[in-house]
Amino acid sequence: MQVVVPYAARDPKSRLADVLDADERRAFARAMRADVVDAVRAAGGTPTLLTTAPPESSEDPALDGVAVAVDDRPLTDAVDDALPEGPGETVAVVMADLALATPESLTRLFETTGDVAIAPGRGGGTNALVVRHPDFRVDYHGASYRDHRRIAADASLSVGVVDSMRLATDVDEPVDFAEVLLHGERRARDWLADAGFEVVVREGRVGVRRSE
Amino acid sequence: MQVVVPYAARDPKSRLADVLDADERRAFARAMRADVVDAVRAAGGTPTLLTTAPPESSEDPALDGVAVAVDDRPLTDAVDDALPEGPGETVAVVMADLALATPESLTRLFETTGDVAIAPGRGGGTNALVVRHPDFRVDYHGASYRDHRRIAADASLSVGVVDSMRLATDVDEPVDFAEVLLHGERRARDWLADAGFEVVVREGRVGVRRSE
Repeated sequence: MQVVVPYAARDPKSRLADVLDADERRAFARAMRADVVDAVRAAGGTPTLLTTAPPESSEDPALDGVAVAVDDRPLTDAVDDALPEGPGETVAVVMADLALATPESLTRLFETTGDVAIAPGRGGGTNALVVRHPDFRVDYHGASYRDHRRIAADASLSVGVVDSMRLATDVDEPVDFAEVLLHGERRARDWLADAGFEVVVREGRVGVRRSE
Repeated sequence: MQVVVPYAARDPKSRLADVLDADERRAFARAMRADVVDAVRAAGGTPTLLTTAPPESSEDPALDGVAVAVDDRPLTDAVDDALPEGPGETVAVVMADLALATPESLTRLFETTGDVAIAPGRGGGTNALVVRHPDFRVDYHGASYRDHRRIAADASLSVGVVDSMRLATDVDEPVDFAEVLLHGERRARDWLADAGFEVVVREGRVGVRRSE
């Protein structure tokens, strides 16, 4: 399956700015991206990195052999152009910040039936998609899960939903680090641990702390 | 399968006090509980409500025919007493605030192999369990997912994990209402909608608003 992995190269993960500086955010975003690309390949997918700026050649050995498409337009426009243009085509879209994605969870997504298969994100987002019909288009603004269901319904397309905590967890804010530390298995988890983050329990709730 | 559904009858859902008064929180907690009990039954389970106080007989027709056990001790002690006491016994534990639980997601849990099968909650909790070995015990304080894995490992028990956004979503805080409104299908969703809550998008993020 062709799998587009969108990545925002400029100022990635800006909502982590309170806890990570710009270089750290870039390194952490790359670690998540590498984990996603690996998981896509292990699930039998062929990843294409869809990035807003060309990667530096020395940037990331994890991208060796990965096709790169550069498109500096907003996410919705860039992804729309990558979707199926004719019958019989299938394209998946998997966000680069799904640090908990595993080959198993992606395989479940790829095997979910429907003209469109959706992995909802927490908070109404769309973390991953499989599009099997040229009449579907994306709209990533706002509550995109609801919008994508509406777009599919308006085009009389069937929708499958994959129920996965791993695919529902995109890493946008420091609170999400707890999920990566608890359930991550690869680079992104190791990066956070090496950077000194650990899970702490305060007043019965789980958070993260960074050692000095 | 025997399925224990723990329910805190006194001041339920206290972290919703900013948006719901005490009567509303009780009604909403009962709506979630009824949805969970229904889903357990539809998944082939036999639910027992494990509650800290006896329900009033007029309280909830959704509990008709459901066994009720009253135990006012802390959750860990009460659940521990309900777990298997000998080989060959299986007991599941499904929290009463899993408003997105469906027969499908619970069936996946019940079919997950291992001496212990765990549905992790967001934030390191344990939202549901299947226990098939008498050496396992629970500890719901703090980051219980990690603790339950450790307890299983210390007793040389195998652990399966079910990857479900629906089972990972317990409803503790107002932000969780968005998940119920977006993905809920039954009483809890209807209760929130009838109470005037709706999904709103503010600055690109999804939240909820209550109409006046």
